[in-house]
Amino acid sequence: MTAQARQIHLGVSMRNPYHIAAWRHVESATLAEMDFDNYVEVAQLAEKGLFDMAFLADGIGVRALDHPARHMVSHDIVNFEPLTLLSALAMVTRRIGLVATASTTYNEPYHVARKFASLDHLSKGRAGWNLVTSWSEAEALNFNRDVPLEKSARYDRAAEFVDVVTGLWDSWGDDAFPIDKASGRFFEPARMHPLIHQGRHFSVRGALNLPRCPQGHPVIAQAGATDQGREIAAKHADVVYAAAVNLVDGQAFYRSIKERMPKYGRSPDQLLIMPGLSVITGATEAEAQRKLRDLQDLLDPAVGLMMLYNMIGDFTGHDIDGPVPVLVHEAPRVRSDLLYAMAHRENLTIRQLYERVAASRGHNAIVGTPEQVVDLMESWIDQGAADGFNILPAALPHGLRDFVDHVVPEMQRRDRYRLGYEGVTLRDHLGLPRRPDPHRVV
Amino acid sequence: MTAQARQIHLGVSMRNPYHIAAWRHVESATLAEMDFDNYVEVAQLAEKGLFDMAFLADGIGVRALDHPARHMVSHDIVNFEPLTLLSALAMVTRRIGLVATASTTYNEPYHVARKFASLDHLSKGRAGWNLVTSWSEAEALNFNRDVPLEKSARYDRAAEFVDVVTGLWDSWGDDAFPIDKASGRFFEPARMHPLIHQGRHFSVRGALNLPRCPQGHPVIAQAGATDQGREIAAKHADVVYAAAVNLVDGQAFYRSIKERMPKYGRSPDQLLIMPGLSVITGATEAEAQRKLRDLQDLLDPAVGLMMLYNMIGDFTGHDIDGPVPVLVHEAPRVRSDLLYAMAHRENLTIRQLYERVAASRGHNAIVGTPEQVVDLMESWIDQGAADGFNILPAALPHGLRDFVDHVVPEMQRRDRYRLGYEGVTLRDHLGLPRRPDPHRVV
Repeated sequence: MTAQARQIHLGVSMRNPYHIAAWRHVESATLAEMDFDNYVEVAQLAEKGLFDMAFLADGIGVRALDHPARHMVSHDIVNFEPLTLLSALAMVTRRIGLVATASTTYNEPYHVARKFASLDHLSKGRAGWNLVTSWSEAEALNFNRDVPLEKSARYDRAAEFVDVVTGLWDSWGDDAFPIDKASGRFFEPARMHPLIHQGRHFSVRGALNLPRCPQGHPVIAQAGATDQGREIAAKHADVVYAAAVNLVDGQAFYRSIKERMPKYGRSPDQLLIMPGLSVITGATEAEAQRKLRDLQDLLDPAVGLMMLYNMIGDFTGHDIDGPVPVLVHEAPRVRSDLLYAMAHRENLTIRQLYERVAASRGHNAIVGTPEQVVDLMESWIDQGAADGFNILPAALPHGLRDFVDHVVPEMQRRDRYRLGYEGVTLRDHLGLPRRPDPHRVV
Repeated sequence: MTAQARQIHLGVSMRNPYHIAAWRHVESATLAEMDFDNYVEVAQLAEKGLFDMAFLADGIGVRALDHPARHMVSHDIVNFEPLTLLSALAMVTRRIGLVATASTTYNEPYHVARKFASLDHLSKGRAGWNLVTSWSEAEALNFNRDVPLEKSARYDRAAEFVDVVTGLWDSWGDDAFPIDKASGRFFEPARMHPLIHQGRHFSVRGALNLPRCPQGHPVIAQAGATDQGREIAAKHADVVYAAAVNLVDGQAFYRSIKERMPKYGRSPDQLLIMPGLSVITGATEAEAQRKLRDLQDLLDPAVGLMMLYNMIGDFTGHDIDGPVPVLVHEAPRVRSDLLYAMAHRENLTIRQLYERVAASRGHNAIVGTPEQVVDLMESWIDQGAADGFNILPAALPHGLRDFVDHVVPEMQRRDRYRLGYEGVTLRDHLGLPRRPDPHRVV
């Protein structure tokens, strides 16, 4: 008998069906981001699919750039506040982990420590914090700034922020609250450990006004791919979301994170790397391609041009079914070189280019049968590029339903996926131990 | 037929059974503040009792003073974060309003606007924000300060803060989101109204990234009794929590708030004043008194002395069953003159004094039959001292159960209380109209 093949861990992005036109699909939830019941359906579907966790991306502002077509897009306009939403979802799910984004730039660490600890208590050990540093101008303008903090300053603050948060999570020993009615002893003074932090960015005395969490610490997820972001991940993260578009890039990123861990006294298996993966699946490859085509046909050219405007420049006035022209007078935009190179290498029209962007949006994407999807996942896992995936359904809820109904059974057939939840907490699902109480006298 | 008597509105304080030793009572929830199921029971009990709202006081720190007996008290040590807790409770209740405290001193207005809007959407119109300015040193020390901001500076910030929050709540018109799949129109650009606020304390562009709320605005509650606090209440609040200990003080406070409203273009019936009322009730007065005695007997002398220490000074070493001595070398504490005067007027022992404090804690308190409790409430309502009450059960959950089982039917018998929820939102319960969209073209 051979050793068990490495298991695949899964998260799902609950917010924003991944294809930019998916909100217009006939099977998409009618009220899009604005109806709580849609989130209940997605979270319960993911739990039925035995996912480790459901993930909520977030920004603290209307992040859509100013453009005549912005009102045709549902992304980054309105969204529930993540911690309130996940706390409500904790009541209608039983096992799935619940991970939300919170900014280290526009929050104070005491609030963040407390909210995630509160969610961990409410959900009986299913909370996770996705640490972000908030790059956008729209967010800066909502928090007393004219421009975003410069990137290295953001990460400098983030590094201290996460130290404070984890310190606050250890404010009380595991056995700090005897709550003994007979003797009148509510808490054990010797098990209270105020933080007393004095740093460059924060002065926080503590203690946190919540007992230690069911998981010890809520799970920490991180996605920043800068050098500073990778160091924070290597030091603190339990999960890293990555945006690798091919196996080689995935392997390089994977190695880069795991190699940094020993210097923080951590072993590489204490952290799971879970690249984003946009999936469209069907019984046959043709059916999957037809599903993609249905979404592309809902993509208004004005929206397609807006996406390219954000990344390359303004193609207004050019034939969208003609070749991609080189815009010489535009300032270079994010990823413009990469996209130009792809367009010219593959001889794409403007329409073909924006359809390509709409389908992948910087992440790895697959359109294919369940077997093809699992083949891809297995190859990344077995070749050192991933420990699991953050699934980005092209459309919600039906894109996730396809995945749960067809891809999950295929993973199970190959002994790559759980047949039921074995544990209770998110750390259990991820195969990570509960964070021990550092103040415990052994 | 006479006109209907004025109805009594009710809130209940869910956190901290009001008597300081109540956590030790045999019927009290075993895990006190730390078990979510206790809050579910209290919220559902209050909903069964047709309360307008359940209220969650809060502080952002362990606020207990340093004292050898502090570990014998459950108050202000650990508590769920309010917005996560109420969002979860929204899932297990259907009608009752859900009001949480949030600080204007240690938050940014965009976060507060968003969290309460999110709760209002999740709960389908049941959210309320209790605005506080955070007086305690323990909180200051958790948010980069050595001492609390001075009171008038706190209220100055609060006044601007609430302007920003309400402005953000009006970021989108009521009909801003057609979400028209056929045309691809997700939102209506003309119905987006970024705030563009530049003030002394805040610079916030908006728009809020949530649609307009089911209630228009979540309910705003306020409790600060300073002159600045009363102005904020008169300008913005829908509900005012008060701490009047007798009818005359209650009437004076009531008049003081309502008289300030016209200068803000508001009529006095647009705001409900709801003093705190600690209630212990039983079938007979003797039974109610016995319930109080049971709680007093659980009050450890060390805890009693700690309460007096916080308010007057250190009586350690004195006979607790002897008279209250005058401490000449102690700095005067909060309310010390008042308490000394009472002790000497009524010839109280140290024990009698701290028992008195434990039972009332600065609020109006009644120990009596359901009839006596309703008599008191009616007299305050009819004599211009209250529009309702924030009930402070001396013990939870049984203190609230007594109220729901016995006081509520007595209010109903006298035609002073609803027989069922007639509306859906918290504003409906309070008899307040939905906040209209100020940008709507009529």
